[in-house]
Amino acid sequence: MIELNNDERLDYLLAEDLRIIQSPSVFAFSLDAVLLARFTYLPIQKGNIIDLCSGNGVIPLLLSNKTKANITGVEIQKRLYDMAKRSISYNGLEERLKMIHGDLKDMPGELGYNKFDVVTCNPPYFLSPSPDVINDNEHLAIARHEILCTLEDVIRTSSQLLRQGGKAAFVHRPERLMDILTLMREYRLEPKRLRFVYPKAGKEANTILVEGIKNGNASLKVLPPLFVYNEKNEYTSEVREILYGNEE
Amino acid sequence: MIELNNDERLDYLLAEDLRIIQSPSVFAFSLDAVLLARFTYLPIQKGNIIDLCSGNGVIPLLLSNKTKANITGVEIQKRLYDMAKRSISYNGLEERLKMIHGDLKDMPGELGYNKFDVVTCNPPYFLSPSPDVINDNEHLAIARHEILCTLEDVIRTSSQLLRQGGKAAFVHRPERLMDILTLMREYRLEPKRLRFVYPKAGKEANTILVEGIKNGNASLKVLPPLFVYNEKNEYTSEVREILYGNEE
Repeated sequence: MIELNNDERLDYLLAEDLRIIQSPSVFAFSLDAVLLARFTYLPIQKGNIIDLCSGNGVIPLLLSNKTKANITGVEIQKRLYDMAKRSISYNGLEERLKMIHGDLKDMPGELGYNKFDVVTCNPPYFLSPSPDVINDNEHLAIARHEILCTLEDVIRTSSQLLRQGGKAAFVHRPERLMDILTLMREYRLEPKRLRFVYPKAGKEANTILVEGIKNGNASLKVLPPLFVYNEKNEYTSEVREILYGNEE
Repeated sequence: MIELNNDERLDYLLAEDLRIIQSPSVFAFSLDAVLLARFTYLPIQKGNIIDLCSGNGVIPLLLSNKTKANITGVEIQKRLYDMAKRSISYNGLEERLKMIHGDLKDMPGELGYNKFDVVTCNPPYFLSPSPDVINDNEHLAIARHEILCTLEDVIRTSSQLLRQGGKAAFVHRPERLMDILTLMREYRLEPKRLRFVYPKAGKEANTILVEGIKNGNASLKVLPPLFVYNEKNEYTSEVREILYGNEE
């Protein structure tokens, strides 16, 4: 049994065989979240993972299939936090998945410094918009724009939460690559793995995936490019496998 | 007529229909130089271009076909400078191509600050080696290792030489991406275009091409990936075209 409010719907996470509550007018997860969940390093048997800017909890849900670690999601918007909680409960994952309704900047104080093995975050991509964009749809505006947290907030907080050698994985836009890399180095999350996502061959990258290690030494790998669509404008086999699992 | 010393040979630059003196024991240009020459922005009709760490002058020679600007090459090793001079003369390009035998760090003082429209550099990639590597082959060691100039020397000098809005193009290894981007920003060569070169599909990048604009605003594009080999281990059509020109 599940309670769906307003225009909410119960969608499938196919590769994981899970269900998730979404709402087109409030929050629906993007391919970026799915790619980040696949990109991040995960401890298999145990550990503590925290997902910041968790939205409707898509990343904790996606990760729950691949690790037995405890996963905490943090979301500042009550409406999205509530959707995430109901999805976790519907999938019977309350034992290992916990949602916190709060500001990520308060988490080191509330949960402790240097405690987590992994931090993931699919943060707001865009700088603060004009007031009419915010008025138009506050939920979407907060999820997409740096209204309640900046990139620097995300990276500083991630570093504070991580133990020595812990890993942070972020997804962002190439326009902010310089900012994300310089902030990561500034807050001692040394970038170690970088992967560019291209909509298709011959196009500029539109998404970056980056992993940093807390107090890691400088040595960066640039992974093979990830293409989303092939020449026929269908998902590539790599993306199909990530989204739908192995359907052979 | 041309004088060839020791094991020097006269090679072809096919796409440009030029000849270049090389020597396997002293210096032979790499694909990286060819890719940088293709990557860099060029003024077509006039302007001043300078190539640092010019070696046997391969980049000035490659660029000479695509621009009517004046091109200056700077090389610290007398033996390589001499090869470059003879190649320029053999190709009848003395009017527009000039080689300087000197230390790049002295060039702003000798040639002037804020004078150039474009700087290119294929610098030594590796940190200083042990003394026995240097003794083994000094010419190759100096071309490949940061013995006589560091990455910071290259970037600082490039910034000093460039006019406001002038463009610097570098080729390097992904392991140094963090260093090159942070140094470029530090010396006000804001990174604007970044392209990753992958040996083939599914492999990690092994080369980066990056362009910065002096005092440019922050906005970075990540260009489509460049693959060197296809599945049959032949050059891809893009690389064939760069190396051999359009042979339809």
